[in-house]
Amino acid sequence: MPETIFSKILRGEIPCHKVYEDAHTFAFLDIFPLSHGHTLVIPKKPVARLDELDETSASALGVALLRVAKAVIRATGATAYNVLQNNGAEAHQAVFHVHFHIIPKHPDGSGLGIGWKAGKLEADAGRELAMRVASSIA
Amino acid sequence: MPETIFSKILRGEIPCHKVYEDAHTFAFLDIFPLSHGHTLVIPKKPVARLDELDETSASALGVALLRVAKAVIRATGATAYNVLQNNGAEAHQAVFHVHFHIIPKHPDGSGLGIGWKAGKLEADAGRELAMRVASSIA
Repeated sequence: MPETIFSKILRGEIPCHKVYEDAHTFAFLDIFPLSHGHTLVIPKKPVARLDELDETSASALGVALLRVAKAVIRATGATAYNVLQNNGAEAHQAVFHVHFHIIPKHPDGSGLGIGWKAGKLEADAGRELAMRVASSIA
Repeated sequence: MPETIFSKILRGEIPCHKVYEDAHTFAFLDIFPLSHGHTLVIPKKPVARLDELDETSASALGVALLRVAKAVIRATGATAYNVLQNNGAEAHQAVFHVHFHIIPKHPDGSGLGIGWKAGKLEADAGRELAMRVASSIA
């Protein structure tokens, strides 16, 4: 896959405001933040989408998200926040290296905007779809 | 903490369209989906916010997210999707038991709506904030 700016950040060729690192993950401040404290948590492995990751990286990301979310809250005093990870340009992904956004929602309204147009899942359709998803798990 | 509807689902007292389960996590279809394939991945431990989780649950959630995301894509044919996890009512959290949404973004436009008003992080402010976050990681 083509290299992204995050590979250059991981190699230290482009500076960043680093907040965390372990064997499989890395975290740094988003330079175009939606709110004070907006932080990115990424795997060191350069894959574009969550579904392309290996389980070791995915497990490490879960732990890194927890550690960094706690720290962002402590450091900024935020009482609410969103965690967002986008896959595909149609889903608002701009850098094609997996990244989780941790985005504080502050009382001034800064943070992630969310549009929520919910439908209703009918019982038969739900049963059929759940079986299809469940049977797609290797 | 007060019990939520997810505790009842985990105990089987309320039915759901289950797609995945392991020792620490559980996944099922959202009954008010934003799009076809909208799925929730939750820890079995009943805590309200990501930052209250233990590292074992967080690690297991990372792996479950990977497995379920792959399966939702295979089952629905979605080519793009968002992963979203909300903490606090101000951040759009409605059920106070940690849950990650996996939300396919389909060509018909159904899926998560995203509002993105980005600012710019100045170098000095970034340096200072990164140090504060980094030093808040236990």
